[in-house]
Amino acid sequence: MKKGGDVFLPSISVDCIIFGFHDNQLKVLLVKMKHVNLWALPGGFILKEEHTDDAANRILKERTGLDQLFLQQFHVFGRPDRSDKKIHLEAMRQEGIPAAADHWILQRFITVGYYALVEFSHVTPTPDTLSEDCAWWDIHEVPRLMMDHNEILDKALATVRSQLHYQPVGYNLLPEKFTMPELQRLYETILDKKLDRRNFQRRILGYQILRRLKETKRGVAHKSPYLYSFDLKKYHKALKEGLREGW
Amino acid sequence: MKKGGDVFLPSISVDCIIFGFHDNQLKVLLVKMKHVNLWALPGGFILKEEHTDDAANRILKERTGLDQLFLQQFHVFGRPDRSDKKIHLEAMRQEGIPAAADHWILQRFITVGYYALVEFSHVTPTPDTLSEDCAWWDIHEVPRLMMDHNEILDKALATVRSQLHYQPVGYNLLPEKFTMPELQRLYETILDKKLDRRNFQRRILGYQILRRLKETKRGVAHKSPYLYSFDLKKYHKALKEGLREGW
Repeated sequence: MKKGGDVFLPSISVDCIIFGFHDNQLKVLLVKMKHVNLWALPGGFILKEEHTDDAANRILKERTGLDQLFLQQFHVFGRPDRSDKKIHLEAMRQEGIPAAADHWILQRFITVGYYALVEFSHVTPTPDTLSEDCAWWDIHEVPRLMMDHNEILDKALATVRSQLHYQPVGYNLLPEKFTMPELQRLYETILDKKLDRRNFQRRILGYQILRRLKETKRGVAHKSPYLYSFDLKKYHKALKEGLREGW
Repeated sequence: MKKGGDVFLPSISVDCIIFGFHDNQLKVLLVKMKHVNLWALPGGFILKEEHTDDAANRILKERTGLDQLFLQQFHVFGRPDRSDKKIHLEAMRQEGIPAAADHWILQRFITVGYYALVEFSHVTPTPDTLSEDCAWWDIHEVPRLMMDHNEILDKALATVRSQLHYQPVGYNLLPEKFTMPELQRLYETILDKKLDRRNFQRRILGYQILRRLKETKRGVAHKSPYLYSFDLKKYHKALKEGLREGW
């Protein structure tokens, strides 16, 4: 078997923060590390000739079975003391691997964080050989994670919330046709707060990424609400160039 | 003299994009590399026990003489072919250094980009021993840069423009007291486009980071415009938590 140093770049790793939205809940995908009884973000290393972004996609697929996600790089975590040798030494002890002080896994790693936001009922997490479990955790119930992974998760969540100010969100998270209250609840779930209905509607419509359909939603109480869908051409333009704002 | 591999982390580097604003012009700070007749972003490597963010500040200081800037990390550039061995080999040839194929500088580096926005009349760029010049370039006149540095610069500029949507800007770039048109011109210079006066004013005031002063600006034609200053407590809160928005 090849050693880490023969295959991967030294000093640098990747961690993936996969947020899952479903039925007005926000969750995050975690893996449980073998041997050390700790949950962690799915992560790994970069092959010697691999693009950083490709590494993130490969690692996510390997660790969780998830594929074809739109991963966004958001921050680098570079505290010199962020690596935790004790965890690796314990795992090596239990695997019967000689714990040489210069073992590749014991070096300092700077990690690049990537995040994605998915509809979690569409995906089936599958742990790989390094992890004994892989599961969705409610964002309010995340346990203490390995190393600095709670800090990485907090930063990812803050980034997702900031990006609501200049990037569209919702495609792939909502049904093809949705009501204004459904879209508002998506924003409320991500922001973890209630929004004013009229301000929300005025602002979202101002971005001009929605198409109001001729049909209304049937089978709901009171007046049938209008259905909307995303104007995908404008949605993707806004993803690339930022939302049309009042400047 | 110590070798790079004895002092620095392998595989990872830092590049700094320093934007300078003055008198409604936007510039970027570049260094001219010795021997190869190419301009580049100021960059360097991370010491073995150094925080990534500290490395960025140290490198900037060493290369340009600039200190105490608020550097913001914004993106990692990780194309496997982004390093350009030819440039290093040519510099080594001219310095009379034997060009061993396994020389430390010839490895693949993934680089972390940091940016800052400063008032450029306050600072005096000073090249270090690796660069033969250090100067402000108008953003519209940047030449072809070393490696992928034009791409890094473009991404930094796009990031600065995006951040206008959720972060305040202007403190340290404008005089302590300024008029609404002066603030608008700062935004217009960064965005490189004209903005509607009334929309701009309504939006900026809505962020509640400005204090309207009792005094007006004297010595200008027509009606004396109101003077404003930043409410620094609210400004710094907004820097941390994002601008108060209409959600």
